[in-house]
Amino acid sequence: MSKKILILSGDGIGPEIVSEAVNVLQAVDCSFGLDLELEDGLLGGAALDVHGEPCPQITLDQARSAEAILLGAVGGPKWDAAERQLRPERGLLKIRSELQLFGNLRPALLYPQLADASSLKPEVVAGLDILIVRELTGGIYFGEPRGIRTLDNGEREGFNTYRYSESEVRRIGHLAFDAARKRNGRVCSVDKANVLEATVLWREVMDELAPQYPDVELSHMYVDNAAMQLVMRPKQFDVIVTGNMFGDILSDAAAMLTGSIGMLPSASLDKDGRGMYEPCHGSAPDIAGQDKANPLATILSVAMMLRYTLAAPQAAEAIETAVSRVLDSGLRTADIASEGMRVVGTREMGAAVLAAL
Amino acid sequence: MSKKILILSGDGIGPEIVSEAVNVLQAVDCSFGLDLELEDGLLGGAALDVHGEPCPQITLDQARSAEAILLGAVGGPKWDAAERQLRPERGLLKIRSELQLFGNLRPALLYPQLADASSLKPEVVAGLDILIVRELTGGIYFGEPRGIRTLDNGEREGFNTYRYSESEVRRIGHLAFDAARKRNGRVCSVDKANVLEATVLWREVMDELAPQYPDVELSHMYVDNAAMQLVMRPKQFDVIVTGNMFGDILSDAAAMLTGSIGMLPSASLDKDGRGMYEPCHGSAPDIAGQDKANPLATILSVAMMLRYTLAAPQAAEAIETAVSRVLDSGLRTADIASEGMRVVGTREMGAAVLAAL
Ligand SMILES: CC(C)[C@H](C(=O)O)[C@@H](O)C(=O)O
Ligand SMILES: CC(C)[C@H](C(=O)O)[C@@H](O)C(=O)O
Repeated sequence: MSKKILILSGDGIGPEIVSEAVNVLQAVDCSFGLDLELEDGLLGGAALDVHGEPCPQITLDQARSAEAILLGAVGGPKWDAAERQLRPERGLLKIRSELQLFGNLRPALLYPQLADASSLKPEVVAGLDILIVRELTGGIYFGEPRGIRTLDNGEREGFNTYRYSESEVRRIGHLAFDAARKRNGRVCSVDKANVLEATVLWREVMDELAPQYPDVELSHMYVDNAAMQLVMRPKQFDVIVTGNMFGDILSDAAAMLTGSIGMLPSASLDKDGRGMYEPCHGSAPDIAGQDKANPLATILSVAMMLRYTLAAPQAAEAIETAVSRVLDSGLRTADIASEGMRVVGTREMGAAVLAAL
Repeated sequence: MSKKILILSGDGIGPEIVSEAVNVLQAVDCSFGLDLELEDGLLGGAALDVHGEPCPQITLDQARSAEAILLGAVGGPKWDAAERQLRPERGLLKIRSELQLFGNLRPALLYPQLADASSLKPEVVAGLDILIVRELTGGIYFGEPRGIRTLDNGEREGFNTYRYSESEVRRIGHLAFDAARKRNGRVCSVDKANVLEATVLWREVMDELAPQYPDVELSHMYVDNAAMQLVMRPKQFDVIVTGNMFGDILSDAAAMLTGSIGMLPSASLDKDGRGMYEPCHGSAPDIAGQDKANPLATILSVAMMLRYTLAAPQAAEAIETAVSRVLDSGLRTADIASEGMRVVGTREMGAAVLAAL
């Protein structure tokens, strides 16, 4: 039976970059005999325009019957005026939550060919290879009660609830320990246990898991220190595991250490390893439709999909090697351009990867 | 009538660095005729050892009758086994809260003499001068309810409450706008209004304040983007204003951009401009008592005290100029050492600043 892959192009540059990534996916489908069946769906502003909501039931139904999802990006000024609950980002939060995609893997990898792009000194970031494992369906993003209320004294107050249960921490912990096993065997769990009880429990559960992974070294770090250490000595990290909010902040900081966020893919996995794959960058509405966007993060998201959901590591590697070769050949999209390199558009970059496959 | 200054040396390197800073404070007291009266008190582990709690009533009483407080740093492995509520950091949180020191000013300033110390490329950080204004007595740090409870299904859950009322946001907003007026006229308010209602209200209140400061430009940024922008293009910022938790993370990241956190002072102000002044760095127990610690952040905290609480800007400037001259002369403590410079200890560095005064 063929495996269904749902393609959600989304908004802004989404359709352009996804189109290149789909070409790559179809190519490896053929050459590796993966028997995939691609289906299109709507998420974000694109869904709002058609169905009146950013994550309609039909998209959820499609997603539930799919093995994996490839997402471009959502959001743009066109929907800024939409009421809060209908914003494109809400669609993203909803699909993550409804599908229980709790395990967000965000690699921060510096491509040697792009070392110049970093704002950090070359010796600080050369060879950088961190994996941030972010909990994606709990914490303060989804905690109830939440809202804006009027206090007895007549003034308003905004409030949210930060919460983690043992089982939520345990499942993301396992994911991080397992990932560290396949890498350099070190997990750094980031919390704020000196202030927040929600993270006191987090730390306890991580400590409880550690004995099951005697080959992995567990350390703990406060989030403020982690932000400092990422700037000062980023190469000390192997796997960082943390909650939804801290993970949002630290993974973006870590991505930016590489200077080339246009290169970074991500995976959001459920407990069975099915998942949604998307670039780390946003929908960049300012350059949408101009054949300028970098499709490589989306193409590399396809590689992650092959590795984590489709159990086709060789196909994943083939894509990663092809991307590396294209960089070696001196082709660059505008966001990663540097002196002496040839600047190409979205389509030409996608075609070059296809050719290198 | 003389003005009382409470000296809380704290733990670790606290006593050594505070001792040098007190020498400087006494010197300007004399030369500028400030009529200060210095009194010693206990906070953190030092207070725990004597009074059985990290912020005893006597310290609060002393603090309430003082104009300003100079704090070294708190914490150390000696008290790691103390129960949560008795940890040295709890003393810090308590004194902040009891004195309503809501306005935390954390400058991230790159000294041209120390430009090499940064892990970022020189052109990215040269001339860096950001002021982070962090709300310090509200938000998730103090929100109730909080704790660890057992759910109906038998598993435990840790929880905290993130909350901000309009008046809390308004007072920190005013502080930030006022600070921007004396600087480059730009405030960037950092929130996560696309996800958290607590920060939706935050953004609204900031927008409401803006018309009162037509000479200041207000912008908004999501916290994940702010973390990225700090790494990528830090010089775009003038004043950043944000809540307690985000401020904790971003101010440490910003401090580390300079590479010389041993140089950075901070102020925590109440509504009348009285305040507590302390270095941004911690108590560094590993080098305590070895005459190795850098006293400059604490000395520069005295300068902030003179400027913000004691209305003695000329004395503040005198100290800042003296510090700059000492750096020019090539003296460095170990943490900021570089080739060709003369490495000195805590006492010699303090003495050099005194001499340069
Ligand atoms: C768009 C936003 C809701 C989202 C998040 O905060 O999770 C984004 O920043 C991300 O990291 O995927
Ligand atoms: C020690 C800790 C409680 C404190 C905080 O988180 O506020 C520290 O990190 C700081 O920033 O002053």
